[in-house]
Amino acid sequence: MEVIQLTEQQLISLMKQMSLEEKIAQLLQLATPFFEGAKSEGRITGPMASMGITENMVRNTGSILGLTGAEEVISVQQAHMRNNRLGIPLLIMADIIHGYKTIFPIPLALGCSWDAELAEKCAAIAAKEAAVSGVHVTFAPMVDLVRDPRWGRVMESTGEDPYLNGEFARAFVRGFQGRDLSGDSDRVAACVKHFAAYGAAEGGRDYNTVDMSERQLREYYLPAYKAALEEGCEMVMTSFNTVDGVPATGNKRLMRDLLRNEWGFDGVLISDWGAVKEMIPHGVAADEAEAASKAIHAGVDIEMMTSCYVNHLQQLVESGLVDEALIDEAVLRILKLKQKLGLFDNPLRGANVESEREILFCGEHRQAAREAAVKSCVLLKNEGVLPLAKEQKIALVGPFAQNGDILGPWSWLGSQEEAVQLYEGFTRIVEPLQVAVAEGCGIESASEEQWKAALEAAQNADVIVLALGEHSDMSGEAGCRADIRLPEIQRQLIAALKPLNKPMVAVLFNGRPLDLHGIHDQVGAVLEAWYPGSEGGTAVAELLYGLANPSGKLTMSFPYAVGQVPVYYNYFNTGRPQGAPDAQVRYVSQYLDIPNEPLLPFGFGLSYTSFSYGEISLSSEQMTVEQPLHIKVRVTNTGNQPGEEIVQLYVRDMAGEVVRPVKELKTYRRIKLMPGESHEISFSLTERQLRYHHADLQYISDAGEFAVYVGPNSRDVQELRFTLMK
Amino acid sequence: MEVIQLTEQQLISLMKQMSLEEKIAQLLQLATPFFEGAKSEGRITGPMASMGITENMVRNTGSILGLTGAEEVISVQQAHMRNNRLGIPLLIMADIIHGYKTIFPIPLALGCSWDAELAEKCAAIAAKEAAVSGVHVTFAPMVDLVRDPRWGRVMESTGEDPYLNGEFARAFVRGFQGRDLSGDSDRVAACVKHFAAYGAAEGGRDYNTVDMSERQLREYYLPAYKAALEEGCEMVMTSFNTVDGVPATGNKRLMRDLLRNEWGFDGVLISDWGAVKEMIPHGVAADEAEAASKAIHAGVDIEMMTSCYVNHLQQLVESGLVDEALIDEAVLRILKLKQKLGLFDNPLRGANVESEREILFCGEHRQAAREAAVKSCVLLKNEGVLPLAKEQKIALVGPFAQNGDILGPWSWLGSQEEAVQLYEGFTRIVEPLQVAVAEGCGIESASEEQWKAALEAAQNADVIVLALGEHSDMSGEAGCRADIRLPEIQRQLIAALKPLNKPMVAVLFNGRPLDLHGIHDQVGAVLEAWYPGSEGGTAVAELLYGLANPSGKLTMSFPYAVGQVPVYYNYFNTGRPQGAPDAQVRYVSQYLDIPNEPLLPFGFGLSYTSFSYGEISLSSEQMTVEQPLHIKVRVTNTGNQPGEEIVQLYVRDMAGEVVRPVKELKTYRRIKLMPGESHEISFSLTERQLRYHHADLQYISDAGEFAVYVGPNSRDVQELRFTLMK
Repeated sequence: MEVIQLTEQQLISLMKQMSLEEKIAQLLQLATPFFEGAKSEGRITGPMASMGITENMVRNTGSILGLTGAEEVISVQQAHMRNNRLGIPLLIMADIIHGYKTIFPIPLALGCSWDAELAEKCAAIAAKEAAVSGVHVTFAPMVDLVRDPRWGRVMESTGEDPYLNGEFARAFVRGFQGRDLSGDSDRVAACVKHFAAYGAAEGGRDYNTVDMSERQLREYYLPAYKAALEEGCEMVMTSFNTVDGVPATGNKRLMRDLLRNEWGFDGVLISDWGAVKEMIPHGVAADEAEAASKAIHAGVDIEMMTSCYVNHLQQLVESGLVDEALIDEAVLRILKLKQKLGLFDNPLRGANVESEREILFCGEHRQAAREAAVKSCVLLKNEGVLPLAKEQKIALVGPFAQNGDILGPWSWLGSQEEAVQLYEGFTRIVEPLQVAVAEGCGIESASEEQWKAALEAAQNADVIVLALGEHSDMSGEAGCRADIRLPEIQRQLIAALKPLNKPMVAVLFNGRPLDLHGIHDQVGAVLEAWYPGSEGGTAVAELLYGLANPSGKLTMSFPYAVGQVPVYYNYFNTGRPQGAPDAQVRYVSQYLDIPNEPLLPFGFGLSYTSFSYGEISLSSEQMTVEQPLHIKVRVTNTGNQPGEEIVQLYVRDMAGEVVRPVKELKTYRRIKLMPGESHEISFSLTERQLRYHHADLQYISDAGEFAVYVGPNSRDVQELRFTLMK
Repeated sequence: MEVIQLTEQQLISLMKQMSLEEKIAQLLQLATPFFEGAKSEGRITGPMASMGITENMVRNTGSILGLTGAEEVISVQQAHMRNNRLGIPLLIMADIIHGYKTIFPIPLALGCSWDAELAEKCAAIAAKEAAVSGVHVTFAPMVDLVRDPRWGRVMESTGEDPYLNGEFARAFVRGFQGRDLSGDSDRVAACVKHFAAYGAAEGGRDYNTVDMSERQLREYYLPAYKAALEEGCEMVMTSFNTVDGVPATGNKRLMRDLLRNEWGFDGVLISDWGAVKEMIPHGVAADEAEAASKAIHAGVDIEMMTSCYVNHLQQLVESGLVDEALIDEAVLRILKLKQKLGLFDNPLRGANVESEREILFCGEHRQAAREAAVKSCVLLKNEGVLPLAKEQKIALVGPFAQNGDILGPWSWLGSQEEAVQLYEGFTRIVEPLQVAVAEGCGIESASEEQWKAALEAAQNADVIVLALGEHSDMSGEAGCRADIRLPEIQRQLIAALKPLNKPMVAVLFNGRPLDLHGIHDQVGAVLEAWYPGSEGGTAVAELLYGLANPSGKLTMSFPYAVGQVPVYYNYFNTGRPQGAPDAQVRYVSQYLDIPNEPLLPFGFGLSYTSFSYGEISLSSEQMTVEQPLHIKVRVTNTGNQPGEEIVQLYVRDMAGEVVRPVKELKTYRRIKLMPGESHEISFSLTERQLRYHHADLQYISDAGEFAVYVGPNSRDVQELRFTLMK
């Protein structure tokens, strides 16, 4: 199929035909119910009026939020093409975060696979399902670096490491966008978010203030956004938080100076929901007009769900406070994206009722979801309890024993009813008679009958499998908790079962690293299943029975207690590190009551088999700018089943101009080994990988001594030293 | 007495007579045992050798750390004057933080008095006792802004507000230094610390990394140090933490560019204990030589307790890596301070065995300590239980019922044996028979007998007074706790007494804001006594019996739970504040499980009387640069006893160029009112008080709308608006 491509000149001519009013409306994004042809059309007349949105504005609106489903998309777009004077199609955007109808594990879980190809595949499937349902742009990937498990949106990130987050950011972008957006209507444009540093909300409270040095911003928080843009990500979304005291959405230094000028991003920048108007409560805009002015000057092209632009930009232009060129620039970026997506050629693009019926939630996609779930679960503890044997009598207790709430937040198009629950997963492997199900308690409370039934089931079982967790509203947007333990009733259930002295396994369904006291110390095995998605029950049951071997590794530290937050592996050593050879007893950086270390470190995860690491070796004790270093290590599967291991390489600059982290992940390898099989891994490391932002923010490396660490996680590593000669 | 003053020229000539080796040794500070004439002389020969310290270096050392007591000071200084080739006296420095021998309440408690004159008086007494004991310089005031109660050193700060901390910083400096250091040998030089931002240690773990924007640093953290320097503070101490990725002690931008060049500080800058060498574990120096080079380039004059300077500066100068002028500059600053203190005239200065005997812990000083303790305690709750009546039978239980550990950290010269314990305080007011004492438990554990005795005592009493708290090692330097509740046994004691249904009062002895669940919600009255010092028992008993009326107000928020940290009153509003008129239920900045607000806010404290506030009024709805605003409020004592009230005024800039805090304390007044008495307070507010650091760090104000709030604490305020016209 040949696609009609408008040249940039043609787009400019089109723009020149637009009135200022039409141009400004192009910068508006509204939700579906505003639009003719929508199923819920007209339902929000009230808000429409209160927002000052007119019929005419809707006719000229540039994009629409949250519209999906081929039939409705076609109806709305067709109506729009009839109503829009110049025939400019709507851009259709939606939050497709970890799957459209086929739901994959939450991003934090996918991160634990350390498998970027897998992430790319999941994103490609989500894109395909979304595209046939009429979506053009997804508000993903979310690549915010996260260190605070109180924050509910950690579930949407891939974790605490800038490098790993960057690798996943690239993978998601490749998966969503493919190679050629205009030629591939199975893909959607990606919108990386939330720019910037949304993950550092103070106190782990969503939308809260972010404050950090520019160095920290550049070293830890920005790399993943940058990686997404290097991969060609078409759009960027602003974050709700302040950056250096100014809300991101009105932050000229962040958006205009850094994102646009320094990084050269010329794609569409969209505000998060309502974020333009939120500059008023933030306290940097006295009114909507000032908010509009700050956002357009910062370089925000599309205002999502508030009407500061449409109600005030015209007057701001007329009074000379805003240069019309700023508006033209924004409009042109939006038109270019429409052109790139082929919408001028075919405003309906991939929307296809028939394909939708065939493709959504098809067997192949569900199979991929199962594979993703298998690779995303992390075995946190196993004292010989797992894998289960088919002949064992199982008591499956806990609120997630039979619970479809395993899709996690941001799965609005998924169906909990169609998700494979854990009990169902069990019965696909063993006879139902082998598994006695009894919830024992709900997520936050229990009835007497529930409790009694669980104790009874447990009494008659060989092994107790506890399916525990948070309901999905306990994480996700605005799902912040100051107490990051599982609700007390669930810990009480464990305590009540403990005296039976039976082997116990806890399977956790949740959206954040938890304080696992009362769980990890009470049971023989713990499997972190996160929210595993549509095929969660199948995948988890397969892992529990050893039909698959756990291979995930944590990408966010599990704190010892909430009083330790933030805890992350790539911290600074301090001048008085705990445990140094000459350290004093008291005067070191420590808590009196708990360890400094998290309960479970970054990179940690177990397998049913065991891997031994040979001694690591370096190709040289010296590295030069031209001559990379090769680090070799032989890894052997010393257990009796096939397994996958994620071998990790970290580096430390021993004396930088600026303090460097005690460890920084530089590269890793996921390898599969049969029992007895052995593989020599060779990592290479170049001077480029040792660069960082110096005192003057120059991005260079230091000559001098470096440590290199290799191991199965960030804690249990071998160390060698080398010198960078410059 | 006429003092021989050396001119700057004479000091320069003196310096020119010094060899490079002698000059470098002048930059060294060692502890007492290194010195001839010290009681503990020679005890640390081992360390001396391992540090590479020679006899010759000791003879040329510039200053000494932790030496006190007139006799020993005289002995050491006289020996030094014999041994030092050029007759340069030692500077004698020590940590005199909240009293020398007479111990005042900890600084966090003194802050709660909101009485800067009181703080000045306490510092003057401490200075006098220190000076007659031979001390020349105290390592105080500590003015680090603090928001994290996990950090043990919050006890040493006056709290979370930059303005209030600044007022106290000035008061302490005035108290320590008086008007004229050379003419007043009852005073000591002050050394403000810890520069900079030591209070923001990540995770509340001492010595840990600090990271913040330069704006935050300048707006919140720097003002109190600056206030101390404006008041003439002679010295500055570096902090242990990093600032923008570089340890403060080697931080050229912080020390050379900001402190020295921008602020014009030309006094002596000293490292904290070992902080020069700690640049090696920090990871910015490969060895001691590099650490020395970084510190001297940053402008650190004195290296405390490590030997990087004495062992490496000479070679660094000879090899051209360090300019000798840098060393000369440092030496000259030290000589100038010695000159200013009159040491060239009289190396023994105030040291006087006889005066020491008279002055230390004298009745007048103890009286001042009592007054300070009375004003520092904060009544956190009172449901009619307090004051106690003399005829009531009291059960005085808990680990602080009879415990001298009420001086708090940094009271090394104070005597717990001589401190007035709580029971003793009671018996000064009522007959011993009226008070049954039974500990019930220790601080962290209990014996059966203890427990039983407390229950028995309580059963026979009319009122139960619980004296609870942390032992003093649980706060202070390196005294960090991830759990900020009182130890469980003490909460269990309350729970065990609760069923007796008797009125209960908790008196708390501790060094940080606590999570008071299990206490505040269980008893009828709570008095926060902090570590009240030598006269603690007297003061607290007087308050409990109503012989004095509580008047302190918190200067640091008491969090609802540790999972809420950091929580402080001068936060940013966010774009989605909780409780806004149009706020959604879920999508606001909040926790799902606890409130956003602290249990007890900044500025909060009760009295036995009540105060009513009339309506506030403004002199105008507009302020101009020339025309300040006057805010009036009438406060009436509506209760039946005399009392003191701290009336607080806060401001908010409604739309700044940069986000401004929801409230900023701008001024306050402590007033004393007799029953029925009424007083109209008039605050003035000028444009200058509305300035802040803008996007480009310019310190200016914004035209536009401001809110002004007046009330008895930061939460319960009246609000009016005005406009700043520019």
